Amino acid sequence: MTPERRIEELGIELPDFGETGYYGGNFGTMKPFHIEGTVLHLSGHVPWKPEGGLLHPGRLGSAVTIPQGYEAARLTAINALAGARHALGSLSCIRSVIKSLNFVACEPDFTDIHKVSSGLSDLLVEVFGEEIGLGGRATIGVQTLADNICFETWIQFSIRDS
Amino acid sequence: MTPERRIEELGIELPDFGETGYYGGNFGTMKPFHIEGTVLHLSGHVPWKPEGGLLHPGRLGSAVTIPQGYEAARLTAINALAGARHALGSLSCIRSVIKSLNFVACEPDFTDIHKVSSGLSDLLVEVFGEEIGLGGRATIGVQTLADNICFETWIQFSIRDS
Amino acid sequence: MTPERRIEELGIELPDFGETGYYGGNFGTMKPFHIEGTVLHLSGHVPWKPEGGLLHPGRLGSAVTIPQGYEAARLTAINALAGARHALGSLSCIRSVIKSLNFVACEPDFTDIHKVSSGLSDLLVEVFGEEIGLGGRATIGVQTLADNICFETWIQFSIRDS
Repeated sequence: MTPERRIEELGIELPDFGETGYYGGNFGTMKPFHIEGTVLHLSGHVPWKPEGGLLHPGRLGSAVTIPQGYEAARLTAINALAGARHALGSLSCIRSVIKSLNFVACEPDFTDIHKVSSGLSDLLVEVFGEEIGLGGRATIGVQTLADNICFETWIQFSIRDS
Repeated sequence: MTPERRIEELGIELPDFGETGYYGGNFGTMKPFHIEGTVLHLSGHVPWKPEGGLLHPGRLGSAVTIPQGYEAARLTAINALAGARHALGSLSCIRSVIKSLNFVACEPDFTDIHKVSSGLSDLLVEVFGEEIGLGGRATIGVQTLADNICFETWIQFSIRDS
Repeated sequence: MTPERRIEELGIELPDFGETGYYGGNFGTMKPFHIEGTVLHLSGHVPWKPEGGLLHPGRLGSAVTIPQGYEAARLTAINALAGARHALGSLSCIRSVIKSLNFVACEPDFTDIHKVSSGLSDLLVEVFGEEIGLGGRATIGVQTLADNICFETWIQFSIRDS
């Protein structure tokens, strides 16, 4: 089963950044991705909704609950896949997830940040399976993200040679 | 126009770390850079002033204003260019900016962190042009940085083969 | 002197993740490492004790002192070495430390984060010597880490071709 088929099967519609443009431009001077050798580096991805605007703005531990944070991380993964497809043409060009560094905006006493970022990791495994979709990971609880975003990922993929 | 000429035209004087040494040694056990294949990894760079000391210490949202933070990020970019020149001999060896991960020390309610780190990204584009100078990016608002620094970048460049 | 001999000489016993498993699974969906070309990327490593549980949970600037944080960073380095040995078979496969991004959970007024992460860097230099063990570095003070961890590293090693 190809990841493109799997995405369909899960009922996920990936945004087409070739048409709408990568939303990162709303957050300053940056390009959406960089390819260096066999590595695809994506710029920060966030829970930007298909219709525009942020899913669940605010901080974990106050405005945002763990299930909402998980959902935001899942939408972030969908956006990162859209970014990867935009960069590579097809998700089948991905050899594996290398690693993701994940940021959770949270209150000082909120220490369940890892439960939030599993919303991202779990989707990647659902789409690619464990061998390709399971990446290295770290998650940090941060003071704040741009425009009150609750979650952001900084992710790298390994891409096939040919 | 070469980046070295452009630096001159902008009236910027890059510090010479070959002479003064990279200031990172003030912040612990580390080397200034690492080259791996075609990638130049710089250690953390901060708004260290040519005469020594930090520009605009403190946190965004209280002691430091957005224009001051932007200026600190711009000085950080200048230092990162000095670090790249020190590592490579000349800025002309840079094929492109890969990406930067940027840290802004800020108050919990300060969500304009992306406006601060554009001080770094904008300078890189001024020096190299969009094709080379526009990198991938993410910015996070952090609790604190060493010695009350307001901004820090963790940046990678792609270098030419020959 | 090989790094394996040096580890012995220092009286350090590296955990065997082949036997006990990498503890990262306690913190969500992730693999322990990824090798891409000549680069070994480790997932987040933390001060996980050989007998299980965290060394010095809490935040710098309140529950955790600088010497305790330094000790936690040192234990984190030991775990990262265990992770590298698990990935590569032997520490002798390491050509050099590329860089580490370090996270210190701390109070808003704690700005000695770099003194904490030197617990990691210093051990790497003790084990490998300066030429191999001295890596690039940055340290950020964060709001919170999973389960109240006080320190975490996100580290990359360069590995030998053969």
